[in-house]
Amino acid sequence: MARIFQIEKKCPQTKARTGFLFTRRGIIETPVFMPVGTQASVKSLTPEDVSGLGARIILANTYHLFLRPGHELIARLGGLHCFMNWPRSILTDSGGFQVFSLAKLCKIEEDGARFQSHLNGQEYLLTPELSMEIQAGLDSDIRMVLDTCIPYPCPYEEAKRLTELTHRWEERSRLAWQKNHRESLLFGITQGGMFEDLRRYSAKVITSLDFHGYAIGGLSVGEPHDLMLKMLEASIEELPEGKPRYLMGVGTPHDILEAVSRGVDMFDCVLPTRNARRGTLYTSFGKISIKQARYKDDDRPIDPECQCYTCRNYSRAYLRHLFMAGELLVYRLNTIHNLHFYLCFMERIRNAIRKGHFEEFKKHYYERKEEVEC
Amino acid sequence: MARIFQIEKKCPQTKARTGFLFTRRGIIETPVFMPVGTQASVKSLTPEDVSGLGARIILANTYHLFLRPGHELIARLGGLHCFMNWPRSILTDSGGFQVFSLAKLCKIEEDGARFQSHLNGQEYLLTPELSMEIQAGLDSDIRMVLDTCIPYPCPYEEAKRLTELTHRWEERSRLAWQKNHRESLLFGITQGGMFEDLRRYSAKVITSLDFHGYAIGGLSVGEPHDLMLKMLEASIEELPEGKPRYLMGVGTPHDILEAVSRGVDMFDCVLPTRNARRGTLYTSFGKISIKQARYKDDDRPIDPECQCYTCRNYSRAYLRHLFMAGELLVYRLNTIHNLHFYLCFMERIRNAIRKGHFEEFKKHYYERKEEVEC
Repeated sequence: MARIFQIEKKCPQTKARTGFLFTRRGIIETPVFMPVGTQASVKSLTPEDVSGLGARIILANTYHLFLRPGHELIARLGGLHCFMNWPRSILTDSGGFQVFSLAKLCKIEEDGARFQSHLNGQEYLLTPELSMEIQAGLDSDIRMVLDTCIPYPCPYEEAKRLTELTHRWEERSRLAWQKNHRESLLFGITQGGMFEDLRRYSAKVITSLDFHGYAIGGLSVGEPHDLMLKMLEASIEELPEGKPRYLMGVGTPHDILEAVSRGVDMFDCVLPTRNARRGTLYTSFGKISIKQARYKDDDRPIDPECQCYTCRNYSRAYLRHLFMAGELLVYRLNTIHNLHFYLCFMERIRNAIRKGHFEEFKKHYYERKEEVEC
Repeated sequence: MARIFQIEKKCPQTKARTGFLFTRRGIIETPVFMPVGTQASVKSLTPEDVSGLGARIILANTYHLFLRPGHELIARLGGLHCFMNWPRSILTDSGGFQVFSLAKLCKIEEDGARFQSHLNGQEYLLTPELSMEIQAGLDSDIRMVLDTCIPYPCPYEEAKRLTELTHRWEERSRLAWQKNHRESLLFGITQGGMFEDLRRYSAKVITSLDFHGYAIGGLSVGEPHDLMLKMLEASIEELPEGKPRYLMGVGTPHDILEAVSRGVDMFDCVLPTRNARRGTLYTSFGKISIKQARYKDDDRPIDPECQCYTCRNYSRAYLRHLFMAGELLVYRLNTIHNLHFYLCFMERIRNAIRKGHFEEFKKHYYERKEEVEC
């Protein structure tokens, strides 16, 4: 197997590390944040906007693209990269999480997850093999195995049953991938609910299947922050050092900082893009809501320290006006700002790890957020 | 008075001409199409998108900006150019047309137009002086006098009364402009309803007030196309040759071609931008609706002859997918295409006039539209 991940530098105090992830379409510096392009579009941005912000990999959702416009159509049109005009890396999820969270009447069977489309009610059975087939049609660079979603809270026996079912699905996913889709990378997903022994058990089983990388699934589903970190630690301790680790669907800058400290390399989350469309903007002094009347006359940029296109060119007053008037441009300007914030934040994390002062960076980040008010 | 308009070339067969319009913020080649930026934003585009498409002047709406966020706020923030980050020319209308078409309970009085805001019902009296004051707050480069809007159909006596009231308002507008706002250009507006003698009368009176340019108002309000052209001809015949002529709110490519033939130099219209957001796209072979199922699998660009960013990078299938999925990006991609179409169309008109074959261009345009089907 060709080298797919290389650790560059480790933090001496924490488990944080920087590295390089190699896909068919380029090299990705880790820890990395992947903007979400659910329906073959990072909402409101062109691919040039996204790469101009520094993103080298985005995430697309298998569930959404399977239902509309369909992976077969995308395959006929040359795959997802060609379809959406994004030549860099794409990671696709398995569709599992959306089947559980968006679809109607989802039922877990041994063979797969039976569900009704949230768009038109049509029934489907998403099997590990179908998920691999869809992702192959999309021609993504990193593909995820199909897993189950363990609810929170969930009794021990049920969590165990679903974790073991996930293991069987992942083995089937791996077989399906080996037959046809070896051009991409394939990541396994560890589960285990909120039980430390199940977390360790799952991580060991999944590691034995030898994937290119490992996701930690089923976290940030409503559990307390401390419990999430404990489960994350238990999972990561059993994962191989030399492979990339991906914390799916997480999260806030705070979550990311804590997860990086525990050895996570990859993140995706809708927060920066969704918040942008709702007028909530990230700054070096915390979040602000651009809707507030206090910004009506405010000629300052969102964040005077920010160098993004939006902050270099537009005032809070203008953004507030666009938002109140329902002008489409505001979604793009806000999204550019929030993604810039996230991607810069990751870059600063990487640089802090490289220079050996990640602990100070973390401390400074928390202090800074407390002290400034806008 | 400094030179503000220079005719470059006249068509030997028609009344079409090319020219240069000089504002404080640059030189504009005419005939020109001005994209509409109603609420201080050309919907879905950044100023860089708009200037990248070749636009050197846009229109903003006095009525909308007066109500939200208010001209005083914009003035405090440095004027509209600074507020919206558009350094090139801006033409503002007088607010009159929107008062008549959007506001509630509009009542015309000698002093001005009394109306209730369509946003919150608050009552205002828009006088010629207030319109000038708002436009001065916005600091636009070309300002329009307040006129009345003559409905269609309208009896002769009523059309005459409103035309004469317009003349009195325009004289007051001119006085208000002379006192405080001489840094901008001021355009008069001719009215006259659908009566040829009133059209000629109005054009003569307005010409005697000596504005920098002349708009032909009250057309394209529901009357038959031929009647519009007849009224346009009557108005223009009485306007001075050496001043720019502006046909407000018009129109389709066909309308523009016919109006240019009759000596019009300036146009604005929401059609390309509004149609873009509704999925209706202009092509060299007529309009298409990207929503149609026939484009589901279509890997061709909107218009294979088009060189716009959208056509160079995206298929009809992708645009249709974005449209059906409600993805924000499609509004921008469609708007770029439609504005490119309009602005290129104007450039081709100008070049045809310059090269002395505008008549052939027109003929070819009509033939082409008939013959191709997609």
